Amino acid sequence: MSELKNDLLLRALKGEELSRPPVWMMRQAGRYLPDYIKLREKYDFFTRVETPELACEITLQPVDQVGVDAAIIFSDILVIPQAMGMTVLLEEGKGPLLPNVIKTADDVDALNTANVEERLSYVMRALELTKRELNDRVPLIGFAGAPWTLLCYMVEGKGSKSFDKAKQFCFTQPELAHKLLQKITDITIQYLKAQVKAGADLVQVFDSWSGMLSPADFKAIAQPYLVQIADAVSKDAPVILFPKGSWYALSDLSKTSAAGLGLDWSLTPQLARQMTNNSITLQGNFDPSKLLAPIPQIRKEVKEMIDGFGTKKYIANLGHGILPNVPVDHARAFVDTVKEYSSVNNNVTA
Amino acid sequence: MSELKNDLLLRALKGEELSRPPVWMMRQAGRYLPDYIKLREKYDFFTRVETPELACEITLQPVDQVGVDAAIIFSDILVIPQAMGMTVLLEEGKGPLLPNVIKTADDVDALNTANVEERLSYVMRALELTKRELNDRVPLIGFAGAPWTLLCYMVEGKGSKSFDKAKQFCFTQPELAHKLLQKITDITIQYLKAQVKAGADLVQVFDSWSGMLSPADFKAIAQPYLVQIADAVSKDAPVILFPKGSWYALSDLSKTSAAGLGLDWSLTPQLARQMTNNSITLQGNFDPSKLLAPIPQIRKEVKEMIDGFGTKKYIANLGHGILPNVPVDHARAFVDTVKEYSSVNNNVTA
Repeated sequence: MSELKNDLLLRALKGEELSRPPVWMMRQAGRYLPDYIKLREKYDFFTRVETPELACEITLQPVDQVGVDAAIIFSDILVIPQAMGMTVLLEEGKGPLLPNVIKTADDVDALNTANVEERLSYVMRALELTKRELNDRVPLIGFAGAPWTLLCYMVEGKGSKSFDKAKQFCFTQPELAHKLLQKITDITIQYLKAQVKAGADLVQVFDSWSGMLSPADFKAIAQPYLVQIADAVSKDAPVILFPKGSWYALSDLSKTSAAGLGLDWSLTPQLARQMTNNSITLQGNFDPSKLLAPIPQIRKEVKEMIDGFGTKKYIANLGHGILPNVPVDHARAFVDTVKEYSSVNNNVTA
Repeated sequence: MSELKNDLLLRALKGEELSRPPVWMMRQAGRYLPDYIKLREKYDFFTRVETPELACEITLQPVDQVGVDAAIIFSDILVIPQAMGMTVLLEEGKGPLLPNVIKTADDVDALNTANVEERLSYVMRALELTKRELNDRVPLIGFAGAPWTLLCYMVEGKGSKSFDKAKQFCFTQPELAHKLLQKITDITIQYLKAQVKAGADLVQVFDSWSGMLSPADFKAIAQPYLVQIADAVSKDAPVILFPKGSWYALSDLSKTSAAGLGLDWSLTPQLARQMTNNSITLQGNFDPSKLLAPIPQIRKEVKEMIDGFGTKKYIANLGHGILPNVPVDHARAFVDTVKEYSSVNNNVTA
């Protein structure tokens, strides 16, 4: 690995003592940035994702303009269902649409898990290009959707308040569901390893809909595949798991080979530390809507959040993606407050 | 109070020893029932809500056809914003739309909190009629939306994935937000007391969007008003609070004057008992999507749920409203499994 000028994120994942935590924001390359909006007006979503130069440019915007401590490659979790052979449509401003959903064993058998590195070569080119353009200023994060979350879209075909079709599939055809989850897991492991080879310094797995599952169903449907991915990929690079809404699984997940766990804003730093026995790096968990509050309030609450988590084994982030309607100076206030934090001048509780 | 033939629900709320828990389902009067669909084809939503004979007929359907241990009056939480003077539109199959949202102090001042019993007299007539038609077979539940959840709709104007406009309102104009929350609280207390006078044996307060709030924001924005309502209304009848997603508040809420707490399916019975120190009746928390599973699996998991909660201080229910696509015989399997449960033949853990 080359020498990163700012390796705070990697050091936080190793559990090193730091005077302030690293900071990045989920969806930091996105619609709240005027320069992103300009590109969005010219190029449709999949053109932006599939053109390495555009994906690179978008990935760098928040590094240059907001000053985050890491870049996360601009892409989408649904490139995996695409690579497996499914049609994925995306209308700007609306959610994704997969017109031919998975229903039967034949549908699952037809999914292709081979050669993901080739099939998603545009992601690899975007990572290589971004790695070069970053010139070791900050680490580069790769990512993928978790198997349960991808199953949700592949079976439901679109966003849902309850993902009850996806759940019904799992409850009524459990063997087939596990076969599908395993196929997604296999390709995701290949995909994340390829991302590391192409330049990602670490990866994050987004289980955006895991909180829809009861603790028992999470353990049956989501957890085993997250563990498989963490075990396989952590040999190559640190892995952060983000099981949104699944606070109940934090204790279990803290004992896996993951280097970090992402948290949403439903739990206090103190409880998160307690549930994970202070044994793993935690990332989060500012309510994205709170970036709409006045800047002094953002600054106050960000400082309180860091006081709560401490500067060791902690990565400051939001509890979910940044909202499109957040003013850029509010996003900057979030980032600046973390960067100005110094454990010397604060009550550190962890 | 007249002599109820089946008063299991009231006895569960008093904490009495029972051989099996009472059972009802949120949204039990609704779209999964063919007879409801028939009425829905003839009368639009607000006609069904505002015509006491129709509301009564719909309320009785699940008692007669599914055998639940309680009736819950057919109505909507948005009758309160309506009674306060706001326009509420509802397109069948879509969510609600409030075209003139609350933005300013003048908007809040213009809201009317007087004479709710008169303004919502159709709810009172529906309760009186239903109480008579029930002929004391089972208790009748009244309900209202919680102040935070109603604020969400009144400020956002419609459903939302993040309710960030509602939160922004609270974060940027906290005094005005609290004034609005207090106005909603005042009218809700009047409304629930009137429902009890008209025949409701107990009431439930639905805080459907409370889980969107961080623990600190819940404590500031949602909890004080839930507590006010519980304190005022519990003098007249037992109050169940259902703060969906706010598992983090269960300990605090277990120490209020509420008689019961509703739970979603994100936590195990064991943890819920632990968080509430076994001091309050708990209600829930079957994943509504699990009613799409095969009947033997429903039966098995319902039994396990009761084993987990025990038959004392427990009301069997779903963790959220029943889904429209649940087959009626699956809903019946849920109810029947609870009714066939006997603590004598089972391992009761509580």
